[in-house]
Formats: sequence, C-alpha cells, structure tokens
Amino acid sequence: METVNILIEALPYIKKFHKKKILIKYGGHAMVDEKAMDSTARDTVLLKYVGMNPIVVHGGGPEISRAMDKIGKEPKFIEGLRITDRETMDIVKMVLVGKINTEIVSRIGWHGGNGVGISGKDSKLIEAVRKAPHEVINNVTGEKKIVDLGLVGEIRSINPEIVNVLTKNDYIPIISPIGVADNGETLNLNADTVAGDMASEMDAEKLIILTDVPGILADPKDPESLIRKIKIDEIEELILDGTITEGMLPKTMTCIKAIEDGVSSAHIIDGRVKHSVLLEIFTKKGIGTMIKS
Amino acid sequence: METVNILIEALPYIKKFHKKKILIKYGGHAMVDEKAMDSTARDTVLLKYVGMNPIVVHGGGPEISRAMDKIGKEPKFIEGLRITDRETMDIVKMVLVGKINTEIVSRIGWHGGNGVGISGKDSKLIEAVRKAPHEVINNVTGEKKIVDLGLVGEIRSINPEIVNVLTKNDYIPIISPIGVADNGETLNLNADTVAGDMASEMDAEKLIILTDVPGILADPKDPESLIRKIKIDEIEELILDGTITEGMLPKTMTCIKAIEDGVSSAHIIDGRVKHSVLLEIFTKKGIGTMIKS
Amino acid sequence: METVNILIEALPYIKKFHKKKILIKYGGHAMVDEKAMDSTARDTVLLKYVGMNPIVVHGGGPEISRAMDKIGKEPKFIEGLRITDRETMDIVKMVLVGKINTEIVSRIGWHGGNGVGISGKDSKLIEAVRKAPHEVINNVTGEKKIVDLGLVGEIRSINPEIVNVLTKNDYIPIISPIGVADNGETLNLNADTVAGDMASEMDAEKLIILTDVPGILADPKDPESLIRKIKIDEIEELILDGTITEGMLPKTMTCIKAIEDGVSSAHIIDGRVKHSVLLEIFTKKGIGTMIKS
Amino acid sequence: METVNILIEALPYIKKFHKKKILIKYGGHAMVDEKAMDSTARDTVLLKYVGMNPIVVHGGGPEISRAMDKIGKEPKFIEGLRITDRETMDIVKMVLVGKINTEIVSRIGWHGGNGVGISGKDSKLIEAVRKAPHEVINNVTGEKKIVDLGLVGEIRSINPEIVNVLTKNDYIPIISPIGVADNGETLNLNADTVAGDMASEMDAEKLIILTDVPGILADPKDPESLIRKIKIDEIEELILDGTITEGMLPKTMTCIKAIEDGVSSAHIIDGRVKHSVLLEIFTKKGIGTMIKS
Amino acid sequence: METVNILIEALPYIKKFHKKKILIKYGGHAMVDEKAMDSTARDTVLLKYVGMNPIVVHGGGPEISRAMDKIGKEPKFIEGLRITDRETMDIVKMVLVGKINTEIVSRIGWHGGNGVGISGKDSKLIEAVRKAPHEVINNVTGEKKIVDLGLVGEIRSINPEIVNVLTKNDYIPIISPIGVADNGETLNLNADTVAGDMASEMDAEKLIILTDVPGILADPKDPESLIRKIKIDEIEELILDGTITEGMLPKTMTCIKAIEDGVSSAHIIDGRVKHSVLLEIFTKKGIGTMIKS
Amino acid sequence: METVNILIEALPYIKKFHKKKILIKYGGHAMVDEKAMDSTARDTVLLKYVGMNPIVVHGGGPEISRAMDKIGKEPKFIEGLRITDRETMDIVKMVLVGKINTEIVSRIGWHGGNGVGISGKDSKLIEAVRKAPHEVINNVTGEKKIVDLGLVGEIRSINPEIVNVLTKNDYIPIISPIGVADNGETLNLNADTVAGDMASEMDAEKLIILTDVPGILADPKDPESLIRKIKIDEIEELILDGTITEGMLPKTMTCIKAIEDGVSSAHIIDGRVKHSVLLEIFTKKGIGTMIKS
Repeated sequence: METVNILIEALPYIKKFHKKKILIKYGGHAMVDEKAMDSTARDTVLLKYVGMNPIVVHGGGPEISRAMDKIGKEPKFIEGLRITDRETMDIVKMVLVGKINTEIVSRIGWHGGNGVGISGKDSKLIEAVRKAPHEVINNVTGEKKIVDLGLVGEIRSINPEIVNVLTKNDYIPIISPIGVADNGETLNLNADTVAGDMASEMDAEKLIILTDVPGILADPKDPESLIRKIKIDEIEELILDGTITEGMLPKTMTCIKAIEDGVSSAHIIDGRVKHSVLLEIFTKKGIGTMIKS
Repeated sequence: METVNILIEALPYIKKFHKKKILIKYGGHAMVDEKAMDSTARDTVLLKYVGMNPIVVHGGGPEISRAMDKIGKEPKFIEGLRITDRETMDIVKMVLVGKINTEIVSRIGWHGGNGVGISGKDSKLIEAVRKAPHEVINNVTGEKKIVDLGLVGEIRSINPEIVNVLTKNDYIPIISPIGVADNGETLNLNADTVAGDMASEMDAEKLIILTDVPGILADPKDPESLIRKIKIDEIEELILDGTITEGMLPKTMTCIKAIEDGVSSAHIIDGRVKHSVLLEIFTKKGIGTMIKS
Repeated sequence: METVNILIEALPYIKKFHKKKILIKYGGHAMVDEKAMDSTARDTVLLKYVGMNPIVVHGGGPEISRAMDKIGKEPKFIEGLRITDRETMDIVKMVLVGKINTEIVSRIGWHGGNGVGISGKDSKLIEAVRKAPHEVINNVTGEKKIVDLGLVGEIRSINPEIVNVLTKNDYIPIISPIGVADNGETLNLNADTVAGDMASEMDAEKLIILTDVPGILADPKDPESLIRKIKIDEIEELILDGTITEGMLPKTMTCIKAIEDGVSSAHIIDGRVKHSVLLEIFTKKGIGTMIKS
Repeated sequence: METVNILIEALPYIKKFHKKKILIKYGGHAMVDEKAMDSTARDTVLLKYVGMNPIVVHGGGPEISRAMDKIGKEPKFIEGLRITDRETMDIVKMVLVGKINTEIVSRIGWHGGNGVGISGKDSKLIEAVRKAPHEVINNVTGEKKIVDLGLVGEIRSINPEIVNVLTKNDYIPIISPIGVADNGETLNLNADTVAGDMASEMDAEKLIILTDVPGILADPKDPESLIRKIKIDEIEELILDGTITEGMLPKTMTCIKAIEDGVSSAHIIDGRVKHSVLLEIFTKKGIGTMIKS
Repeated sequence: METVNILIEALPYIKKFHKKKILIKYGGHAMVDEKAMDSTARDTVLLKYVGMNPIVVHGGGPEISRAMDKIGKEPKFIEGLRITDRETMDIVKMVLVGKINTEIVSRIGWHGGNGVGISGKDSKLIEAVRKAPHEVINNVTGEKKIVDLGLVGEIRSINPEIVNVLTKNDYIPIISPIGVADNGETLNLNADTVAGDMASEMDAEKLIILTDVPGILADPKDPESLIRKIKIDEIEELILDGTITEGMLPKTMTCIKAIEDGVSSAHIIDGRVKHSVLLEIFTKKGIGTMIKS
Repeated sequence: METVNILIEALPYIKKFHKKKILIKYGGHAMVDEKAMDSTARDTVLLKYVGMNPIVVHGGGPEISRAMDKIGKEPKFIEGLRITDRETMDIVKMVLVGKINTEIVSRIGWHGGNGVGISGKDSKLIEAVRKAPHEVINNVTGEKKIVDLGLVGEIRSINPEIVNVLTKNDYIPIISPIGVADNGETLNLNADTVAGDMASEMDAEKLIILTDVPGILADPKDPESLIRKIKIDEIEELILDGTITEGMLPKTMTCIKAIEDGVSSAHIIDGRVKHSVLLEIFTKKGIGTMIKS
C-alpha cells in the first residue's frame, strides 16, 4: 500500500517534467563506484520510462590518470586542467569513449533503457577551438611563464541535431566530452561545461551535476551547512567572501551560465547518495543545492 | 529515500506496460463513493503519465435507479437486466452520459489528465441490436412467459477509430455503455460486456474490472478465501460446483471472452480498496483475482 | 436535369467555403421540433461531405425547465439567466450532455455523419469562472438587491485542441455549453456566447445562430421587415433606438464580438424554416440577417 | 428552396462516392463542342469539390485528322486504327498534349479546379509496345495483306505513381493517351483502352465513357431502345446477335475488362447531353448504360 | 583510376549543391540539335541522381516558326517578340507543350530520370496579363505606330506548389513557357523570363541559361573575349558602352533580376558545347559567364 | 571535359545503387595507413552524397595488440581468435570504440560526411553469446586440450533500429564490432562476421570487405591470378583443393552467408589500392573478387 501512496506522491513531479529534457552530468563517485554507477543508470532509465527525456554527459578524470599510469605516463595539470599532448589525447578518447561511455550504455541497457553513446565528434556535435597558450604567474615566486595546455579546447558551437534525433526516437543519448577542431583534431573538453552548454542548447528543463560533496556549503568545512536553494545574484557574494571554494567554483559558474541561457533550474547534488537523481526530482526538498535565476 | 526505493521497485512494471492499453471498468463502490471515485481517477491519470494508455468504461446502475425514483418511476429488472422503456432509456442516457461520465472527466481533469467523455453512440462506436423477446421460466411456479426487455441491446460491432484517435492524441477516453441500433435508436448495454469487448477490440494488455468484492472467492461466504490466480479452464469447474455465484458469473464470463480474444490478463478487483488499480499494476502480488489463459 | 443545374449553381459556394470551419449554434425550434432537428442535422452532414468543417454548439433551455418540472423543481431566472444551484446544475448537465447532445449525435449519425459529442469539460475545452454576485435594481420599485446566480459561469479561456483533433480526423464535433472552473466545478454557460467564442477561437469562416425569428427586424412587430445585411457600426444605432429588442440583444452582441475577433460573417437565421442552414450557405440571398464588419 | 431540396437529394450520392476515384473518358461531342466541353469540365470540378477524385483521360481523333488536313497529309485508317508514321505521331502528340489537354486544363482551371495535364510519357506513366504487323483479310475480295500500323502501341504496364501523387495533392490529373516504348519512342494508344486500364490500375470506383450515342441500344436504329443496366454475362449474347455494333464493341470490351479487373461499375453515356456526368452520378436512374459484374 | 580521381574532384561540387534547386533554361542549339538535346538531358538526370534538384524551363522559337511554315502561315516579329494571333497561339502551344516538352520528357526518361512535363497553365502555375498595345517609333522614318502583339503576356504571379510537389516526390519538372490570363486565355511568354522568375520563386541556387554563344563577350566580335565572371553593378557600364548587344540584353536583364530576387548565381553558357551544364557545375573554371551580386 | 565524360560514365552506377545500402568493412591496410584510411573515408562520403547509403563496420586487430604491448600484456591467439580476458576486453573496447571508431568519424567529418560512431552495445544493436569452451587438438603432438577463449562471442541477433534511424536521418553509421551478452557483459566479435550479418540484416545491396590482398587468387602465390567473379557453388571446390587458404577462408564464408541471406553481391577487395571502394562501384571491371549467388 505504501508503494502506491508513494507513486501517487510522485505524480505531481511526473506531470511537471513530462516530456521535458533533463541534462544529467555523471561525475565523481557516480563514475567510480560500481554501485553508485548502477544506481544512477537505473535512475536515468526510470526518468525515461515515466515520460521525461534524460540526456547524459559524463566525465572521467580519475580513470584517465589511472590509464596513463598503466603505460607509465605521468598526468600533469595546470590550474586544474590536464596538459594534453597527442598521446594523452589518445588515452583520453579511449578511456572516455571506449571505456566509460560504453560502460554507461551497458548499465542503462541492463536496466531496460536504450542508451546510445556518442561523442562530441559524432556528426560534429561539439565544435571547439584550441585554448590559446597564455601567461601564468606563480603565486609564490612571482615567476611568469607561458603555458600551453596542448589539445585542450573551448566550445565554439553545438550542433544538437544528432541528440535530437536520438531523443525523438526514444533513445537515451550518452555524450563523451570531447570536441572537434576546424582541422579535424580532437580536443579535450571540461565535462561540466559540456553538460551546461548542452543543457542550454537543448532547452533542457534541468541541469543536474553529480559531485562528491553535498552541494554548496555555507561553511565549506561543515557538511551540515548545505545551502538548499540559492539565486544567481546571491552567489556572487559567496564567491567574493570565499565561501564557494576552488573546487566548486567552475561547477557553480556552469550552473549560472546555463540558467542565464534559459535552463529553468540547475542542481549540484551528491552522487555518493544512492538514487540522488530521483531524490532530487521526486521529493519536495530535493537534495543538494538548487540554483535558480 | 523510501519514496525513491519504491519508484525503483515500480520500474519493472512501468517498463512492462509501456505504451500498452489498459481497459479499466469503473463500477460498484468506485462509482458511488466520492473518495473511491477520486482515488480511481488519480490512479488512471498516473498510469497515463508513466506511459501506459488507460481506457475507461463506466457503469452506473444504482445512480440510474435513484434518478428514476426522483421522478416516481419504478425500476424493474428481469434476470438482472433492467427493463428499459423509452422514458427509462432517456434517464439512462442522462445519468450515464450527462452525469457519471462528466463527473469522471472532471475528476480526471482535476488530477491533470486530459479526459474526453464519449458514448457508444459517438461516431457509432458501438453498434448494437435489440435483444429479442424471449421465454422465461419461473423456477418456482414453472410458469413460462415471454419477456421483452425493451431497449436493451447486444453488441454487434465496435468501430474503435474514435478511441484510437483520442488515445494517440494523448487523451484518456471515458466511455458510457450505450449503443446505437441500425435504426438510430439508443440501446442500454451491460457495462462489463462493453469493457470486455472494447478490451479485445483495442488489443488491450489488461482488462481490470472494479467490483465490490475482493475477487473470486473459493468460498463465497469467506472473504478471506480469495483465489489470486486462475486459468480459464479451471473456472468451468468452479461454475459447475456453484463456487462462482450469480453476481460474479457475468463478470467472469466477460473476462474469459476477453482473454480468448487476445487480452493478456483480466482482473476482478475490489474497488473499495483505495488505489486498487495501482496495487494491481504495481505490486507483484496484485490484488483481487487474475484470470489468464 | 434540374437536379444537376442546381448542383452546378451550388458549386461557387462549395468552392468558397472549401475546408472552412462553419460554427453552427443549434437553438430554439431546431432543438425542439423533431423534424426541424432532423433537417438541421442533415444540413450539417451535407456541409461536411461537400468539404466544409461544421462545428456544432447546442443550447437547451426549454428542455432543462421541462426536466426540472418533472422532479417538481421550479426553474428561476434573473435577467434571463437561470439561477443554478447544485441540483439544477446536475439537471443541466444531464439534459445538455446526456440527452440533447446524444440526440444530435444520433441524428447526425443517422444521416451518415461521424458526430462526436463533447462538453466544455472534456480535456478542459472551456475554462470558466463563476459570475460574481452583483447588485440588481428593480426598475419599478427602485429596490436594490444582491443577486447570486449560483453555478453560472463566464468563459475565461478555450483550449480548442480536442475540437481540432476531431475536425482534422473528419469527425463533426458537437459541443455542450458547460464549462469547468478552477476548482473542478461545472458551470452553466450561455450557449450563444460559447458558439461565438468558439467561432473566433477556431478561426471559423462563419457563425450561424439558429433562432425562432426571421433575423433582425427593422420593425420588431413586422416579420416582413427583415434586415438582410448590416454592418457592425450600423447596429449601434438600432440598439439605441430600441429596434434591437431584448431577446435579440445578446445574440447580436455575440455576433459583433465574433466578427471583431476575426470571423468573416455572422448570421442570425430562422431555425423554423426547413434547411435554413443550407439556404443561408447555398443561396445568393441567404436567409436571415448577415452581420459583417 | 428547391436548390436546397436537391442538394439534400444529392447527399446519398456524395456520401457513396466520398474519396472514391472516378475515371472519366472525355470523348466525342464533349471533345468538339465548346459548350459540351465546358459543361463536362465544370462537372469534373464539382465532383472534386464534393469530395470525389475525378481522373480524366481524353481522346481526340477528329481534331488530329483536321490538323493533318491543314498540312496536307491524308489520314489513313485500317480497322478503325490510324496508320501512324513518324510525322503523324508528331501531329498526334501536338494535338493531344499541346492542344486538347491544355484546353481541358484551361476549362477546369476556369471553373476553379486545379487541373494538371500529363501524358503517358511523363515519368513513364504508360509503357507500351508497338503493335506487331499482322495479316488482314479483305472481306470483299478475300485478298490478304500484311498491315503495319506504324507507331501504334498496346499498353504493357502502367506506373500510376505520378497520378497518385497528383490526386493525393488535390490536383485533377488529365491524361493524354500516348505511351512510351522501351526504346523511348512515343506510341499512339486507343484512348478508351487507356481509360479502362487506368481505371483498374487506380482502383477506380467508376469508369465513365462519354460518347455520342445514348448508350448501348437494344435496337441500334432506335435511340429510344436504350439498355439502362446490363451484366457482363448478358453482353456476350448481344455481341453474338449483332446488337452491339462495331462502333460500340471496343468501348463495351473496355468496360468489361475494367469490371473484371475490379472497377465497381462502368458507364457508356451520351456526352451530347449537358452535364451528363453529373446526371449519371447524382440521379437514381443515371443516364446511358451501366455495366456491372 | 582516372574515373575515380575525377569523381573525387567532383565531390566538393556535389556537396555544395546538395538538395539545392538548379533552374536550367534549355535554349538555342540544345533545343535543336539531337545530340546536344540528348547530352543536356543526360546532364540534368545526373544532377538529380547526385542529389540536386534540377528544374527545366524550355524555349522553342525556331521550331514554332517551322511549324507555321508547314501550314503556310508567316511568322511575324516586332522588337524580337512574336505577333501571336489565336491561330499562332494554338501552334505555339502544340509545339511547346505537345512536341518539345514531350521530347524532353522522353530524353530524360531514356537516361533514367522521372521527368514530368507541365505548362504554365497547369494548376495556374503562371498567371499572366496580356501585354498592352503600345506605340513604337521607327528609328529610320520616325514614323509612330501602335503595335498590338496579340496573345503575348507578362508574368503577373507564379503559384509554384505543383513544381514543389513534383520536386519533393523526386520528379524532374519540365516547364513550357506559356501562361494563363484571368479570362482563361493562354498567353505566349518569353522563356528566359519564365526561367528567371521561376528561379527566384523557387529559391533556386543557380539559374543556368543555355545559349548559342560562349557567354558575354568583352568584344562581341571576338569569341575569345569571354567575360568569365561579372558583378551586377559592372554590367550597367557594358550596356551603356554597347558591349552587351541586343541579343544578349534580355538574357542579361533576366539574370540580374533573378540575382536581385535572391538566386545565388546566374550563368549564361554555350549550349553548343557538349555537357556544358556539367562543365558549369563540376569544374572550378566553369564555362560561360557567371553573374553574381 | 574529361571530368564530365567520366561523371557521365558513372551515371549508370549512381542510378543502379540509388538509395541502396552498401556495407563496407574497413580492414587491413585501410585501418593502418593514414592515407589509405583517408582515401577510404572520402570514398564513403562520396557514396553518401551521390545518393547511396554506406554503412561502415571496422576491424582493428593490429592496433589492439599494439595497445596491449604498451601496457606489457602479451596478446594470445588460438586458431586466429584472440584470447580475451577481462583486461583485454577493456583494451579492445578502448581501442575499437575510443580510438579507431572516433578516428573514422573524424576523417568522414573532415570530408563533409555526418558520421556517427556506435558499437554493438548501443541500444543492444548486437546481442551475442559467449563462445563455449571447446576441445582443440594439437596437429603436431596430437594432444587435446580444452580452450576457453574468454570474452569472445558469437552473434545471436541484431536489432538494427538504431542503424536505420541514423541512415534515414542522413548520417553515416560507423559500427565497432563488439556485442552485448544477456548478462550485460561486452563480448569481442569477429569484424568480418559483424559486417556480413549486418549486411543481410539491413538488406544491403553490396558487402565490400577491404583486405590486404587483391582478392581470391587462383594461385595463392601469384598475385596476378586474381579471380574476378565467382559463384557460390564454384567456391566449394576452391576450398577443397586448397586454393582458398586459411586467411581468406573466413572472409569467403562470410560473403557466402551474406549472399545466401539476400545480399546481392559481396566483394573482397584490396584496401591498399587507393580509392578501391570507388573503383569497385564505379567501374565495369571492378577490382578484387566479386561473389554472387
């Protein structure tokens, strides 16, 4: 009987998001831990079956570094961005497209969903330009040096037709965050940014970013201090006073941009919590932090 | 959290009945008690939103008798069938189409569904022929007499196009059980039979008949003796040994016919139990009696 | 041979209204007299078959009062509007939807048309708000009193999708003039107003209102004084000088509003004349009064 | 009022042939006399507007001979078939496609129809093979000689797609009776045969052949002796006993073949009678001779 | 191997004009010489098969005069326009529609294309008005006289639906340059003008006019002085200084108008060169003169 | 001019394969050498643009072994099949889906095609079962042992919907040869077999297998002894007499099976020859060996 009462309670949410697109960024724990991965895939399939249109973008940082280790290549980062030479780019592609994406397709298929994995290269879904080399100042020594990140790109435009074709034909698209340059070269992209831009380009109703923290914390040291709801213009202050710390900053910026571009709400939620996506969508309180305009 | 676990448990059922047609016969308590009516309507809307295609056929006996009382006309029955003269037929139409059907449309609309009420007369959905007068023997006196039920009909053919058009355009069709004769006359039909024939004509996956008993009982006097599952060929015995009593007999026959005509399963369930339709569809055990081939 | 000459003469009208929507308000005599009803239904079917898209809105005042009489309830009116308590509303629904609408569907079906009866409640076709209680002054005594008409509504918005779906699929929609309030309650609506608003909402080419008078009369006492054609701005004068009398006033206002909202022409015609609808459409002179912008 | 009564009388015919294809062979008088031509064109447009799908095939013998005269070329016939050398074929094409067909398109356009003229060559609508030279015996002298009719063809196959495309898009197709050979050459075809074969290939409901006689006559010399209705198997006798004379024989054979191939009825009617097509379709008696299976 | 290299070289052109409409005016040599005609037809079919949408407009002056000769009627021209009495108009129609158009359809069919011949009269594709009689001054004598060209028209509007229907259904439309007047009369039109107006109305990518000269020549007497590319505003000068001579003037004006109305490029090319259409489309240099905005 | 002549010569082939599906197996040289890869990609794009529907299946053996080397894992084969433990399977997926497939998508995109890379796991395109462990006899020692190839699969069924959706929407599908087992596990498949089965499942017109030999050789040691054309029943003999040697045997068997399942022709061609695919399709002689029924 409880089953049924809960279904009935879910009805308003099912109605609200009927036929709406929900962009889910798989990240952190949900990309590493088998169970978390599986629970997230099942959530995604359920959204599809109750009439929504989930679209998945996945990340994959740790797995890439692990693959580099295996062949004895040391991962290098500057300002949180991976320096990507041609050999690294090959590993990035293989891990993202060949391993993680197919893994997600598997799990979604296992739960009865029709997942189709694509990358930003397929029919030029994501056109990108290489990030120009730029000057970086060492905070300690004051030394300046020119940094070239290699094959790291910035999104220039999105051609969403293939995603629309898949969605319209009842498939769940799973997107690997790489892009294609004018010269045909593959570029490494930030997965959060891809998720955000894809959300606005697809007129998504919601952007949900899975992380390994509860959301934006009023006191970064106190996991109990979760901010449940925040408006775009309230965020600036939190950035200025250092509440939104480095790790959270780019995710927050991605959410702000998506909302400014028309996405109704953006959510930073804890992928370590089982079924966090469903908790976000089907409970009044939600989980994590909701950002609205 | 429980919310979400239960949703996850519902997923296999949602998948199983995805885009399938579910024919629900509203009857008994669910047509009388405000709360039961409302809970049934809400269940129906939920089925629609999670991707199934519910089609409703409703009954209305008690309400018709009440309306006749009001104008001082005495309802008469022979063998459970209402003797229907022209004036009675007018009342039947007014109550079924004008009162009960619009009431169901209201409740479905209230819960967010797009209900559209039609009757068997709309675009000749149900073509019927008048039941021929026939001889009846009084069990006690042995007296024979010819009985003419008047404007009571038997279904000759169903033209389901209008129901298909409504279903395909995402409406929930709500059907009043009257038919149209060759001469244009309206005929009173048995609602269970309409539900059963409509289920087979529409290639429904399930026929669910709401009643005021728990289902088929092994011992008609013991409500605890519910038979949860029974095959068509096991039923005959129950009829012969008097287990299936008079009130249940026509409903059982309707179920058998529907299954023989291709409906996957038929269910006689207790409309007095709140959310009985959802309990039937979303729990492993179901409620009431399931009849299969 | 004459047959054929007349068909040939009809061709220009058939061409002119090809695929156009024609909103016909069934009223007065055409709702009471069997023969008139039948002739109007046949006219409607003919329009459909020669390529136009008739949409029917019906009234039903006298029949409602008769039904109230039967159960010993006295009909009450203030300023021509029926005071509608809950019990009355039930009778209104039963008579309009259950009796009159099904009757029209029958007759249309009889002549080979695919009629589908709906009410303003179906998929919330007509959303309405309850008319607020308001002060009325007795012209004679000068006495003021607050009048509450009960469940009488005013149209707030029309969601014409269901009518479009029916029309596109070659059905003839027949609409009962009731609406649904925000709280789900049924409200009694003026049928002429429903016809007018539906005509503009559906981009109808013509609005035809069937009445029991020849049309607008230059001298209300002289049935020979019919005004055949009148422009919107000429009507005001007729209202001021008392030519357009009370009964005709609301119909005239409905016509004006429909034309201001884009309907090409509105017609007030005599439903007592056999085949008046066809006479209006297929003869140069037409019958009744034509109102144009 | 009469107008309207007649429209009402036409309704059953309009219903009966709703969306049905009617193949009309324009011939004889209706291809020569301006008024007859015009009346036939208007009839055709009317059929289209009241919901049928007329398809026109035209002939043109006399006009071709006249054009040949103009350039001083003598028309020659053997067994009623025109001996067609290359120069003659050019004239045939020019007269049929360039003159008669465009003339019909004009008249249909004038009455508000969207006629599109095509020939059997367009997208290889009619593939034909040249009639082989064959022996002919002179009935009088008993002399035998080999006759080569030149570019005269027999229909091998019909590719009706273009006619379907035109019909589905609400155009009236007007077809000139020429065909294309395997080698690309144009072949002269018998227009009646084209009409008959086209009728069966298009699953037409009716084949109507316009001639200059009242129909099949019981006594060929007595125009009053019209046979109104005849079955296929009754015709054989009439052929054997010489009732069906030479001129009528091929038309009759065409009708029989069309009916055997699935056309519901075939009609040989008098094109000299004004609006003969409408008289045939919209009156109970029809005109001319109806042939049924 | 060369075959393949050349196909590969053609790829960029095939891509560039993928699904684009190409309006080709068949004229001059390409309408007279069998081989030229055939090569042009084959080019047209190839364009269709490699994914473009060719639309053909043809001329036919010389053939018309020849046909007039045959019946002993002298062709007369004023200012390059044929004086067209009713008899001449008949010949024009017969030659254009009945002979040249069917001939082109034949050749296109022979090479595997689905050509459908239509004229400006079909479903009123080209509506025209008769050119008003106007005063002409004899350059030599200074004498003035009123000239009436008879049934010569100017294009008033184009209803391109039929061409769109044909193109969308994979047919190649072949259009004869005649128009229909308000009174239903056929009017003789300039084929170049028809081609130009059709190109803009259809949003064609290219207008290609086949002539009997290499293109616009810098020195009209020197065929080697071909201008390969010219902008609209450079042309005026050439007209003023007499470089663009009388014969070329109207074709040039047609090209300018088409480009001003949105066609991307217009080409005047030499139809005497075999496969000139393909040379224009598939080589970098093209042939003839290209006019751009 | 030559350009154009060759295009004209290509027309019959373009017509013949219009809208037909061509299954191309990329293998050998064409998967290794940059230039060969690029030329094959360009060929594929050209086929798409001239109206055919190419579908690509790719292999990748050598690249997989190279990737294994990099992480110090030794590739092992039994009877030409790779022993695939879980770690190897991960590498297979990464190389096939993440590296080779994206590389092909890149090259196709570079030449203007809309490639979309998928694997047999996407929406369960290829369902497979694990090859059962089986006994192998050492030819030399006569020793028997049970061999378990690990995650190597055999195709059980193909669900081609996703490939159809992509093809219909004008994408070029590029398929990696892995399959999904009932338990969700990824299985390594033989790419030739995938190509063959996909060809029959998709009703392809042609199956083209790119290899590193000229085709089937009458004398395996003499590259000049190419068999240009062979029928299925002639092949058996060649197998028996040892002409078709080990390397060629499975490819030949794949071709035979495809043809028996309805593919019109299968081709084993030399991927080392530049533009070999186009040479096969656009020249009369073709290249390599053609196998027909």
